[in-house]
Amino acid sequence: MKASRQPTLAFPGGLSPTLTHQSGQSHTSNPSPLDRFALGMYRIAMGKPPVEFSLWDRGDGAAMDSAVPRITFLTHQALWQTCLRPDLGFGDAFAAGGIRVDGDLIQVLTAAFRATDQSPWQKFRRHYLHWIPLSHGNSLTESRRNIAAHYDLGNDFYRLWLDPEMIYTCAYYSAATMDLAQAQTAKLEHVCRKAGLEPGMRVVEAGCGWGALALHMARHHGVQVRAFNISREQIEHARWRAQTLGLAHAVEFIEDDYRNIDGRYDAFVSVGMLEHVGPDNFRTLGGVIRRCLSPRGRGLVHSVGRNLPSPMNGWIHQRIFPGSYTPSLREMMQVFESAGMSVLDVENLRLHYARTLADWLRQFEQHVPEVTRMYDEYFVRAWRLYLGGCSAAFAAGNLQLFQVVFTPTQNNHLPRTRAALYGEAAPEFWES
Amino acid sequence: MKASRQPTLAFPGGLSPTLTHQSGQSHTSNPSPLDRFALGMYRIAMGKPPVEFSLWDRGDGAAMDSAVPRITFLTHQALWQTCLRPDLGFGDAFAAGGIRVDGDLIQVLTAAFRATDQSPWQKFRRHYLHWIPLSHGNSLTESRRNIAAHYDLGNDFYRLWLDPEMIYTCAYYSAATMDLAQAQTAKLEHVCRKAGLEPGMRVVEAGCGWGALALHMARHHGVQVRAFNISREQIEHARWRAQTLGLAHAVEFIEDDYRNIDGRYDAFVSVGMLEHVGPDNFRTLGGVIRRCLSPRGRGLVHSVGRNLPSPMNGWIHQRIFPGSYTPSLREMMQVFESAGMSVLDVENLRLHYARTLADWLRQFEQHVPEVTRMYDEYFVRAWRLYLGGCSAAFAAGNLQLFQVVFTPTQNNHLPRTRAALYGEAAPEFWES
Repeated sequence: MKASRQPTLAFPGGLSPTLTHQSGQSHTSNPSPLDRFALGMYRIAMGKPPVEFSLWDRGDGAAMDSAVPRITFLTHQALWQTCLRPDLGFGDAFAAGGIRVDGDLIQVLTAAFRATDQSPWQKFRRHYLHWIPLSHGNSLTESRRNIAAHYDLGNDFYRLWLDPEMIYTCAYYSAATMDLAQAQTAKLEHVCRKAGLEPGMRVVEAGCGWGALALHMARHHGVQVRAFNISREQIEHARWRAQTLGLAHAVEFIEDDYRNIDGRYDAFVSVGMLEHVGPDNFRTLGGVIRRCLSPRGRGLVHSVGRNLPSPMNGWIHQRIFPGSYTPSLREMMQVFESAGMSVLDVENLRLHYARTLADWLRQFEQHVPEVTRMYDEYFVRAWRLYLGGCSAAFAAGNLQLFQVVFTPTQNNHLPRTRAALYGEAAPEFWES
Repeated sequence: MKASRQPTLAFPGGLSPTLTHQSGQSHTSNPSPLDRFALGMYRIAMGKPPVEFSLWDRGDGAAMDSAVPRITFLTHQALWQTCLRPDLGFGDAFAAGGIRVDGDLIQVLTAAFRATDQSPWQKFRRHYLHWIPLSHGNSLTESRRNIAAHYDLGNDFYRLWLDPEMIYTCAYYSAATMDLAQAQTAKLEHVCRKAGLEPGMRVVEAGCGWGALALHMARHHGVQVRAFNISREQIEHARWRAQTLGLAHAVEFIEDDYRNIDGRYDAFVSVGMLEHVGPDNFRTLGGVIRRCLSPRGRGLVHSVGRNLPSPMNGWIHQRIFPGSYTPSLREMMQVFESAGMSVLDVENLRLHYARTLADWLRQFEQHVPEVTRMYDEYFVRAWRLYLGGCSAAFAAGNLQLFQVVFTPTQNNHLPRTRAALYGEAAPEFWES
């Protein structure tokens, strides 16, 4: 156990929380009229969500109707931090224990986000905030640092609440009865079918996480995989798994950046990496795809996206995923246009990610004592907000999950329909 | 029969052809060294396609190996018209009978287009020609004129070579054995399933052609349809069909522009209209969708597209479809972003359109004597090139066919998977 490992970049250690999420103690004087005015203005700016907002004088949870979804600012600092920098401040104040949410966290945030989508603040963000350069770039060096800040938090931490295969991307609940592990396996298989894998093919994976997809492809589809990732902890785990499963001959895990992918492949897959590429590098990624995909090859990119180009939520960008950007489908198309690719299929799996994140949060909550021992309460609250908030953002329609299938422009070796994704029959091709 | 009806805009009647496609007579002096140089340069500019190019001194078909795919310029004028204005000149010269193609027209053009895609001329076009404003706009008045020029050529003409339902858009050959009529019915059903039709729903159709989809929806899915079209001939035929089928109570055919659609609907469908909207009006179309689709409604737009933004082929734009523009998927996304829509599904049916157009051309060729009587030989050759050339453009990957399914951002009444498009089971929904 890496209990002493502290996050070095994403969470500045200097913020020592004095309030816990649960306790709801208040340490400040009664709210002033200015505090109440600020709270009212904040509520209006957020599009008047169907959620009660309270200040610290009503912070005693027991005294209130817990059936009413409610967000309570427990300190003067939490209120003003949030009002003055809504994007960053809410998350920081929540993580510091300055905000309490009564009611199911995901449900309360979903209701809030649905109202926020057309709010004055959201419109202001979309129109103006994207002119502000993001604070974390995506050069080769910056990407290493960004990825380490999140994915190298410690495999033992992720093992607590991910599925046994440690798949840290949207699952595919193709049947309502599926649990997380089943839905993750269904996702791997859905990706393999979309990519048109056949035994003997050479496959490259850009951003392979802990290696579950690469290993699944080799194990169940008989392909040769080269899988790239710049997270050292993930690559080490993936290599160990390949050894354990006797798949080291079929899967090569390479600790390197997607920009350094070489060779020619029959399939290109990338699940959950595009979010870390940054729009300035979309053409670069397109160039990688162009040079490494064979003329009859097929590719799949799976990424969080948006309906409209929007600046990243400041807290997510600063504290959780430095350097990340979730593009709209239109922005995403720059990758495929510059790659000389033809888009064959786009599927939006938004509600699958809402459920995946809810499942992760449920497991995370069952391991709070361990996580607190590994890190601290600030970290626990921050991750609670990240997992719950992202689930809510997908449920509310603020975030999308796009799977895009593509192929070189002139490839006519294509399945006639998508029926084979949904049945046992092999696809029928236009040209063999 | 409207035998005397002449196209008034798309084909300037002044060009009286002196050569037929088949005869290959030559009327000009021997080619000069400059003619041969121009032909060589043209071949290079076109990316050196695997097709023989010849001049009028070798125009005697009988003397040549007919197994070699060959394009022969039969006159001095045809050569220079093509070399000086490649986009417009080739089509005009072909229609005038100045160009002969040996070999299967679609196969020869497919081979040529595959080479052309990365040719110097194509790169020049993509970089520079899109700065030249298109010669036909898409105002309410211009759209009327543009649409009349093509779709009001006469129902009797289209009846000769379309399927019995007169569906003039890409069919869906979901099984290899399907004929044109079966594939058109399969397309209608595929569209209905994607749009999530249920009995009692209100549906609006923008650009309804001769009414086949609107009538299919009412007849087989029990919905109420309002279908808009600005082609008078098509609307008159559609109304007559609705009367004949006893569906006049369920389907209202309205001779009006999509911009004038009013009311609220559970589904929005538009099959083959976006090509005539023009990129300047994509946001306008988005606004129409936004105001007319109910919060739990679903929509489908089916349109010819591109992998990369490209200027229209000049001949198609001037002679066949005035005012048309085939957008890239990225350009198309402007419609849905401005509509506040979430894209759920994109499917590329490119090779289905290659086959549809080949089937149309085959039927057209069987009715050349009637078409010649209705119009003239110039018209026959122009339509032969249009149908064959478009089939080739889809086969070569120059053109795409995108079906885009979308819904308002916050709608969670969505099918869990797309399996119901491919089986008999009803879709399972996330939220009821």
